[in-house]
Amino acid sequence: MPRRIAVLPGDGIGPEVMEASLEVLKKALGPAASDFQFDDALVGGAAIDATGSPLPPETLKLCEQSDAILFGSVGGPKWEHLPPVQQPERGALLPLRKHFNLFANLRPVKLYSGLIHSSPLKEERIKAGVDLLIIRELTGDVYFGQPKGREGQGENEKAFDTMVYHRYEIERIAKVAFDSADLRKGHVTSIDKANVLTSMVLWREVVTEFAKGYKPAHKSEIKLEHMYVDNGAMQLILNPTRFDVVLCGNMFGDILSDEASVLGGSLGMLPSASLSTQGSFGLYEPSGGTAPDIAGKGIANPIAQILSAALMLRYSFGMDDVAKRIEKAVDRAIEKGARTGDIAGPGDAVIGTKEMAAAINEGL
Amino acid sequence: MPRRIAVLPGDGIGPEVMEASLEVLKKALGPAASDFQFDDALVGGAAIDATGSPLPPETLKLCEQSDAILFGSVGGPKWEHLPPVQQPERGALLPLRKHFNLFANLRPVKLYSGLIHSSPLKEERIKAGVDLLIIRELTGDVYFGQPKGREGQGENEKAFDTMVYHRYEIERIAKVAFDSADLRKGHVTSIDKANVLTSMVLWREVVTEFAKGYKPAHKSEIKLEHMYVDNGAMQLILNPTRFDVVLCGNMFGDILSDEASVLGGSLGMLPSASLSTQGSFGLYEPSGGTAPDIAGKGIANPIAQILSAALMLRYSFGMDDVAKRIEKAVDRAIEKGARTGDIAGPGDAVIGTKEMAAAINEGL
Ligand SMILES: CC(C)[C@H](C(=O)O)[C@@H](O)C(=O)O
Ligand SMILES: CC(C)[C@H](C(=O)O)[C@@H](O)C(=O)O
Repeated sequence: MPRRIAVLPGDGIGPEVMEASLEVLKKALGPAASDFQFDDALVGGAAIDATGSPLPPETLKLCEQSDAILFGSVGGPKWEHLPPVQQPERGALLPLRKHFNLFANLRPVKLYSGLIHSSPLKEERIKAGVDLLIIRELTGDVYFGQPKGREGQGENEKAFDTMVYHRYEIERIAKVAFDSADLRKGHVTSIDKANVLTSMVLWREVVTEFAKGYKPAHKSEIKLEHMYVDNGAMQLILNPTRFDVVLCGNMFGDILSDEASVLGGSLGMLPSASLSTQGSFGLYEPSGGTAPDIAGKGIANPIAQILSAALMLRYSFGMDDVAKRIEKAVDRAIEKGARTGDIAGPGDAVIGTKEMAAAINEGL
Repeated sequence: MPRRIAVLPGDGIGPEVMEASLEVLKKALGPAASDFQFDDALVGGAAIDATGSPLPPETLKLCEQSDAILFGSVGGPKWEHLPPVQQPERGALLPLRKHFNLFANLRPVKLYSGLIHSSPLKEERIKAGVDLLIIRELTGDVYFGQPKGREGQGENEKAFDTMVYHRYEIERIAKVAFDSADLRKGHVTSIDKANVLTSMVLWREVVTEFAKGYKPAHKSEIKLEHMYVDNGAMQLILNPTRFDVVLCGNMFGDILSDEASVLGGSLGMLPSASLSTQGSFGLYEPSGGTAPDIAGKGIANPIAQILSAALMLRYSFGMDDVAKRIEKAVDRAIEKGARTGDIAGPGDAVIGTKEMAAAINEGL
């Protein structure tokens, strides 16, 4: 039985960085590549154009029959006139997350020492090394809470959403955060707004209780600290090197993970994994968007997509060794000076998507 | 009839920076100072210690009899063991905002050219000049929305809050943003999450409609753009100089205004004004907190408190000229090299709270 990967390139730079990542992935797998079956499907704007829907039933069915989804990115100006729920991002990503119970979003943010120049922060703030992991809850909170609605007329017309968390949702995402910290620096920062929100009072309580009962397998203990989201938004910029694992709900995680992405120098470097409550299924995608301005030009940075493929090997297929080989090959390419436009410094020779994939392949 | 100012120094560095700001304020007012009556009252932790409540009835009564509140800051480790609702920050600020309908929070973020070194951002990102104004809605959203609650047992126990906006709330805060932009660079960036939240779909709709009907008094037009909050959190760091007025709901404004505060180099530089639906009443406070680590040492930066007093003269007492004189005196002191510890660069001579006030007074 082959292991099946649903390949959903999507829009903008999606297809070209996907192609580059599949090349690297297959090279890294070597003979084992023949154990895998890769099936393409339409998603996002491309799917709207072809079928009218950003997530057609055939695509969903293919994903159901697969062991993992390798996702590109979706959206673009062409579909911005549509009502939000029908737009590519909202219409594909949210249903996929909910349908597959992708409750845990992992976003590692790492600043390669060769890329310090591309970070917006002063060198002295980051030279101690930025290496943090945002764990964002992905199927709860004000994103999916019910009721949502709109009622009334005239100036009293109102619209509302429900921010809600259940104990079990907080416990299972806390476990992901603590297990991750156990394999990293042993430090969890839990983000909330317990000074104002009832749902966040429960969040803080449950995370605190969870920590008390948690037995790390590697570290002697996991340090837990709580931080209000407003302070977190400040500290990420003032003291980025103080963080290890940052645990957030869905809404605050959406904001803080995008904010933290600037620390890595370029969105083009940052992969993400969304893991399911069901076994080893997961969705893997770059943190960045479709970059319509550079799409189709062959100049986009494929590293985020390549590192997403590595995360897929690690989390969905238990192939940590191959994942590490890909990550090391990326390190090597960066060290040797391979630079797409987004991470080039003054005077650097700029290469394209395919050349970057080739540079990484060399180091495999 | 004197104009009455309720002076609420609060905790930590509150009292010392308040004293410094009153000195500058009185000197700036000159003979007109005798038209003002200043009444002190307890608030925050100091009020808890004395009366058991962070906002005692006598304090509230004094505020009701006053034309404006000059607020220091509240909170500290001593009261952190209390349940959140009884803590100084939550127990004093939220009720004050609600009671006085302080619906509009204005937070100017300005980077003085002499302080570029204290910004965490690389000089090239900010040298074009950071000068933005965050307008945060302050009495609605998930902060005050009903219902809030907690129910159920065991792993299904849940806690919830309601994120809600009414059309009239969005209209009145949009007006503050557009009026402000009309006096500045004519550009409003409205922050929302209309791709996910029903309340934010209404937000975007109402702001768009408001813009269509808006007639600026000074500029030929006000440019409006919409930005998702996650992207906003990124752009504030990547391109801070692109913003003029940033319009946000209560929750997103809480996060983005704290994030944006790092652009000013130090929280100790940033004032804020919270304006009421009722006439010219307002509450004026520094953006920073009580800084317990340096409290009582006479070394805190009083500028945020001094600039808050200037905003009070402008918005509650219509004394724009005196407000400007204070702001210019602060500019001058900074230009001449006056530096408290938080804004000192390597090799700078560091002065204390009183000396900073004196340096500002000299330039009045
Ligand atoms: C497109 C949008 C619905 C989505 C979200 O808000 O979760 C995106 O911002 C993300 O972070 O993946
Ligand atoms: C103390 C807290 C309740 C408050 C808020 O969240 O509004 C504070 O963070 C602020 O921004 O003034």
